[in-house]
Amino acid sequence: MSSSLWETLRRPEALYGDRPAYVDGTSRATYRELANRCRHLAGALQASGVGAGDRVAVLMTNGHRYLECYFAIPGMGAVMVPLNNRLALPELRYILEDAGVHTLIADETYAGTAGQLADSVKQVIVGAAAYEEALAGATAAVLPVGVSDNDVAGLFYTGGTTGASKGVMLSHRNLLSNAMHATIALEYTAAEVYLHTAPMFHLADGASTYSVTWVGGCHTFLPSFDAGATIEVIARERVTATLMVPAMLTAICEHPSAATADFSSMRMVLHGAAPISTSLLKRSIEVMGCSFSQGYGMTEVAPLATVLDHEELLVDSPRLRSAGREIVGVQATVRREDGSFCAVDEVGEVVLRGPNVMLGYWNKPAETAEVLRDGWYWSRDLGYLDSEGFLFLVDRAKDMIISGGENVYSIEVEDALCKHPAVLEVAVIGVPDDKWGERVHAAVVLRADTSVTETELNAHCHELIAGYKCPRSMEFVPELPRSGAGKVLKREIRDRYWGSSDRGIN
Amino acid sequence: MSSSLWETLRRPEALYGDRPAYVDGTSRATYRELANRCRHLAGALQASGVGAGDRVAVLMTNGHRYLECYFAIPGMGAVMVPLNNRLALPELRYILEDAGVHTLIADETYAGTAGQLADSVKQVIVGAAAYEEALAGATAAVLPVGVSDNDVAGLFYTGGTTGASKGVMLSHRNLLSNAMHATIALEYTAAEVYLHTAPMFHLADGASTYSVTWVGGCHTFLPSFDAGATIEVIARERVTATLMVPAMLTAICEHPSAATADFSSMRMVLHGAAPISTSLLKRSIEVMGCSFSQGYGMTEVAPLATVLDHEELLVDSPRLRSAGREIVGVQATVRREDGSFCAVDEVGEVVLRGPNVMLGYWNKPAETAEVLRDGWYWSRDLGYLDSEGFLFLVDRAKDMIISGGENVYSIEVEDALCKHPAVLEVAVIGVPDDKWGERVHAAVVLRADTSVTETELNAHCHELIAGYKCPRSMEFVPELPRSGAGKVLKREIRDRYWGSSDRGIN
Repeated sequence: MSSSLWETLRRPEALYGDRPAYVDGTSRATYRELANRCRHLAGALQASGVGAGDRVAVLMTNGHRYLECYFAIPGMGAVMVPLNNRLALPELRYILEDAGVHTLIADETYAGTAGQLADSVKQVIVGAAAYEEALAGATAAVLPVGVSDNDVAGLFYTGGTTGASKGVMLSHRNLLSNAMHATIALEYTAAEVYLHTAPMFHLADGASTYSVTWVGGCHTFLPSFDAGATIEVIARERVTATLMVPAMLTAICEHPSAATADFSSMRMVLHGAAPISTSLLKRSIEVMGCSFSQGYGMTEVAPLATVLDHEELLVDSPRLRSAGREIVGVQATVRREDGSFCAVDEVGEVVLRGPNVMLGYWNKPAETAEVLRDGWYWSRDLGYLDSEGFLFLVDRAKDMIISGGENVYSIEVEDALCKHPAVLEVAVIGVPDDKWGERVHAAVVLRADTSVTETELNAHCHELIAGYKCPRSMEFVPELPRSGAGKVLKREIRDRYWGSSDRGIN
Repeated sequence: MSSSLWETLRRPEALYGDRPAYVDGTSRATYRELANRCRHLAGALQASGVGAGDRVAVLMTNGHRYLECYFAIPGMGAVMVPLNNRLALPELRYILEDAGVHTLIADETYAGTAGQLADSVKQVIVGAAAYEEALAGATAAVLPVGVSDNDVAGLFYTGGTTGASKGVMLSHRNLLSNAMHATIALEYTAAEVYLHTAPMFHLADGASTYSVTWVGGCHTFLPSFDAGATIEVIARERVTATLMVPAMLTAICEHPSAATADFSSMRMVLHGAAPISTSLLKRSIEVMGCSFSQGYGMTEVAPLATVLDHEELLVDSPRLRSAGREIVGVQATVRREDGSFCAVDEVGEVVLRGPNVMLGYWNKPAETAEVLRDGWYWSRDLGYLDSEGFLFLVDRAKDMIISGGENVYSIEVEDALCKHPAVLEVAVIGVPDDKWGERVHAAVVLRADTSVTETELNAHCHELIAGYKCPRSMEFVPELPRSGAGKVLKREIRDRYWGSSDRGIN
């Protein structure tokens, strides 16, 4: 039995052909039209030499063309590689070369970047005009073309503890499974109008893309997040569901028109497992007047693992600080180092299983073997389960900072800082931030007889890594706290900012 | 990655351990208690010599012990064989021997039958006392025990065009997939209180067993259907969902206490794809005041393929006569004999695909190859799809009658009748019946110089086949209508009862 991700578009085309599939500003399409556009995109890619298994990267802001890539590329048996559009040029180049990308599809916004990257790929399709020309000139492809469950559908790059970004290989079955799990957990139906305002290159948003389509809901978009525009599009398109990170919710709550805005169509806001304060959550519930659900997961599980739903009913419960419970289809356990299961309330590593668990990291068998054992994914996140299966996260073993919804791996920032000649050593941590949830903070030890300013170090970082990864604050210290074995004790630095309690990740 | 059906019980035990799993008269259990009972049943079976892959048959009326079998048997890696308790002794014996059943579990109601069947199996566990003794004496098994996705979880026997009953092999993945599809299509949640009043040996009811458990809902039971008891238990246990066949709905609507009954807890009645008249449906909606959904499927797809939901909104639509649309996870197509897809409104064979499609028929590779081609299941049902994917059934190619919710294959009844020395030939058809939807009707040609009464022929049939398969009416005719090629033209006989239009299967 073979099932392709194309199935998630085939069904609404057959059942809801005349219903709206998307509204993107003044562009709209029914499901029949969307499926036809996707078949033409697939046809154009095939005609240009893209074959089954070839990688096709996407560098775009949110919009219907991004949506089309989500179906056409895996639908034709190729592998989609969504690119984080906030990455620096060397980071993007690394991914294109690591993945061996055949074709890069970019929009006008990234025309300059795409031009600079052209020599790393076989072809580029840049801008809406070129995209539309390709579709118009193509014969509609016959889909699906011999795709099987365990074929790779997408390579989703994620930072890593080793510094190098890793391509998470997700199969058709992985993404179809998550789509089904998410549909149950988030109660998506054909009545959904889903707003893509969080970046579509993130699987946090991408996961709902397949779910909402499969059940026959409608998509709408903002090129990127803007509070005023979000408030306006929710009212105009009668949006029912969307994904937000805390920084977005803050911006909406603080927007002058929030008090008079029409949020009456909203059914549910899904927000990521980034730190969110109870006060922000309460205020958001008050302002938007709908249901709030928190999702926890990671790219490696395609991505949803647990959901805390109906937080509006939990505002006075200590469980509001939990990441919720395993969703139908996913097993969430907490383990000791020897693999045994932790007792209730005992902290251990979060270990996940389900048909949504990734195939592995692209060309990285050693890193894959480290996290995938007997079909279980060892997340490196630390947490505990209470007596009714609510998961509480207490730390991220992989030393990750979530700032404004983006994952930042300390090691990447530390590597960049250390490349500056004046820097002897650094420790990068996340510290609480009202706007970003966490912000990237660096404790820097300079070499003897050197000097450098924070501004100079920041400019240095911006050349090497994405802006959101660069430290938003720094402290210069004579030495880093270390354990007897010489290991840097980041917790000691963190405690000055967070207090000695749990980091309050949720 | 391996997932066992045990997963559907592990989750509610972990998340909802203290919530009610079932209420069965005066017996009740929380999810923790249910899971413990199942582990003990599995332990008892293991101790008695049942190993992975061994078949364990169940011959019981509805109740919590039936529910326990649904989890303990596949959970320990054995294969569950639910027996239709309306079958005649020779039919039951055939199944036990065909499946090579190791252990037969029966309740008091079938103690006599079980005794007569004891020599066809290695052991029998008969009656509640023996069952409870086995549990009390057993060590709890550690589950799951090395079960993989594609292992057979159950053998579900179904009649066939060849006369011999066939064991449909459903894997853990098949049943887990259906459970997930059904959860989406029927919108099961943790708030569900599901009443098992339709027979639990049928997968039509059994399918909801896994769904309702997985999401953490509660089960309640009637040993077998009774209108008054159903009305009473719905009010007492605040039942939200149940499966009914038309004959049950008729009995409820006609019951003296229906008008004053409390159906306020009911969310949805699911009814099978047996013929139901629009007037009965309208009356049932009026009486019960809840949502009605029709399901279409068959054991071979574990079993749900299409659903017509919210029929209460369709009472004046011609689509009320459709079997609904493919559910998320299942592809429903209509094909020509050469495998090509029919056009909109063109009649062809209903062909289905999904992770829920059976592994095949037990020990019947030829019959399996006939219906499973490239992962698609050819159902033998005839129908067409309208422009929005609504499936309309027009005939059953496999010559099946659905009487009171039971499938009756004409060939089985014809074989039984023909064993009587006075019978030359027969044609068995379904004719419309107010109570049963369809009733089994026989057109009989006697041998020259013989005579037999309808009563005598009926008594003859009852010795060989289940009572519900025996003709409820007969006509004696001098000859059967035949085509030029000599094929019996059953349609000509049917048309006298149904008119020349579609048979009105829905």
